[in-house]
Amino acid sequence: MKILVIGAAGMIGRKLVGALVRRGHVGQQDIDGMTLVDIVTPEAPAGFPSARTIAADLSAPGTAETLLADRPDVIFHLAAIVSGEAEADFDKGYRINLDGTRFLLEAIRQAGQGGAYRPRLVFTSSIAVFGEPLPAEIPDEQALTPLTSYGTQKAIGELLLADYSRRGFVDGIGIRLPTIAIRPGKPNKAASGFFSGIIREPLAGMEAVLPVSEDVRHWFASPRAAVNFLLHAAEMDSAPLGQRRSLTMPGLAATVGEEIAALRRVAGEQAVALIRHEPDAVIAGIVAGWPQAFSAKRALALGFAAEKSFDEIIRAHIEDEMGGRLG
Amino acid sequence: MKILVIGAAGMIGRKLVGALVRRGHVGQQDIDGMTLVDIVTPEAPAGFPSARTIAADLSAPGTAETLLADRPDVIFHLAAIVSGEAEADFDKGYRINLDGTRFLLEAIRQAGQGGAYRPRLVFTSSIAVFGEPLPAEIPDEQALTPLTSYGTQKAIGELLLADYSRRGFVDGIGIRLPTIAIRPGKPNKAASGFFSGIIREPLAGMEAVLPVSEDVRHWFASPRAAVNFLLHAAEMDSAPLGQRRSLTMPGLAATVGEEIAALRRVAGEQAVALIRHEPDAVIAGIVAGWPQAFSAKRALALGFAAEKSFDEIIRAHIEDEMGGRLG
Repeated sequence: MKILVIGAAGMIGRKLVGALVRRGHVGQQDIDGMTLVDIVTPEAPAGFPSARTIAADLSAPGTAETLLADRPDVIFHLAAIVSGEAEADFDKGYRINLDGTRFLLEAIRQAGQGGAYRPRLVFTSSIAVFGEPLPAEIPDEQALTPLTSYGTQKAIGELLLADYSRRGFVDGIGIRLPTIAIRPGKPNKAASGFFSGIIREPLAGMEAVLPVSEDVRHWFASPRAAVNFLLHAAEMDSAPLGQRRSLTMPGLAATVGEEIAALRRVAGEQAVALIRHEPDAVIAGIVAGWPQAFSAKRALALGFAAEKSFDEIIRAHIEDEMGGRLG
Repeated sequence: MKILVIGAAGMIGRKLVGALVRRGHVGQQDIDGMTLVDIVTPEAPAGFPSARTIAADLSAPGTAETLLADRPDVIFHLAAIVSGEAEADFDKGYRINLDGTRFLLEAIRQAGQGGAYRPRLVFTSSIAVFGEPLPAEIPDEQALTPLTSYGTQKAIGELLLADYSRRGFVDGIGIRLPTIAIRPGKPNKAASGFFSGIIREPLAGMEAVLPVSEDVRHWFASPRAAVNFLLHAAEMDSAPLGQRRSLTMPGLAATVGEEIAALRRVAGEQAVALIRHEPDAVIAGIVAGWPQAFSAKRALALGFAAEKSFDEIIRAHIEDEMGGRLG
């Protein structure tokens, strides 16, 4: 079978490609072709030298058609302008996140005309489709009320995915990712960065800044869990989804205090001592409007699974990013 | 003030224009300019001979910019390809209902660059944004799960309206209209047509076909109530909406049996005798998935009002369409 990964150079995209190469199959079918696309040329994966790697802009006319030339059986669409950039550059956000997704769906529909082409499309959405006021535990039936252009674009992507699936043009599944923690790599400017930073930096013996109070509660899954969501979405029977094609993924609701307690259990008091409390009213204000917990009943019933404690999330980071050993 | 009505030749559009001319003002401001647009040239309203009437396709590049030339203070966007046609012609539905709405929002944004132009935009959405499974009474927080391309396009319009409003480009209000009953005019092929037909035809001494059972329950408001929703949306303070810019309008939950009982009270047994029961499994199947009732708490709290009995709906029809007298 043939796989297309759009957004293959990003953090989740790279991990997904690595997992696909290690497994060698999706469902019962061996992977015999792989096309990896991003705005910069993705790395060709070791162990799968025949992968096609392409630098392309999905929002440019004709790009989507080119990517479908070999009629991939499974398409992972992970490409997006992230929240902060979509807010700063209104046109770019709509062009990539809305037009790009619509061009892809439309190219799939056109490719299917007169034939039996109807690929599985796994689309990454986000809990940014929800915005306050929200209940403490958000049910699967909650209205999408995004408070960012990024969340708006993801919510529109979900609606298009459902309609194109209902009409039989594509077999789409949208997965709303929790906040991914612990993100590997360097600290970044994202408002959510500290959720990862206060664990990642101390584990590496470095200081980290905590800009909010310890009772802030949020919804997490590890990068490893995110990759497993994507693989499960590619393999599962889509019939039980009915017409509701997007699912809030399971995750772990944890407070910053619970994060820190897990860090203490895994890495001791000397790691916790590296967290510097430096309250930032702006970040605290942004984070105050974020979802705290979801029921995720549908996704759990359909076999999606995430970590059950922050200790597990930290251990996944140590195993996957630190070679299994604390610095 | 200047008013722009897009979709002015439709049933609600014509009634809205008539009401605007009779009142002569919106809020505290007199109406001194009116532009009426539809895909066919709308009639110039008696009593407002200076109205500009234009035949134009909102989905054609440049149309929206032209319509904004005199910087209307209030814009009513009622234009849409209806449900059946958007289902039959996928491209046309997306072009008019999605691209048309987006072009309008984008033209408003561009017109506002560098100035203080930020008009009130009243957008008609629909309860078709909801699809089964649904609770018996649908709350304001219910997820939008359309089961038609039309409903999908309206839901996307709501999301765009909210994001463009949040960003300060427009002062938008989306109103989700109930099923309008009693629609004046001739019977049509819409699956919902019988809800109006079983009252309208008998009131005029004609036979009507009822294709579903009397326990079918649905959500209604009169054309008069719909026009009042639009006027209230144009006049109200939008601040209490916060970031949730679309509202399910109040209406009346009534079964077909309750409709018939109201007809009996208003027009007697001889009118009811004109209803011929002719079960149609296809129509019954379509209607079975439709919403039955809404709480509409937010809209009620914001001053929107609809009929409280089907007798009222019938009387509004007799007053507005039959000169106040039964045939």
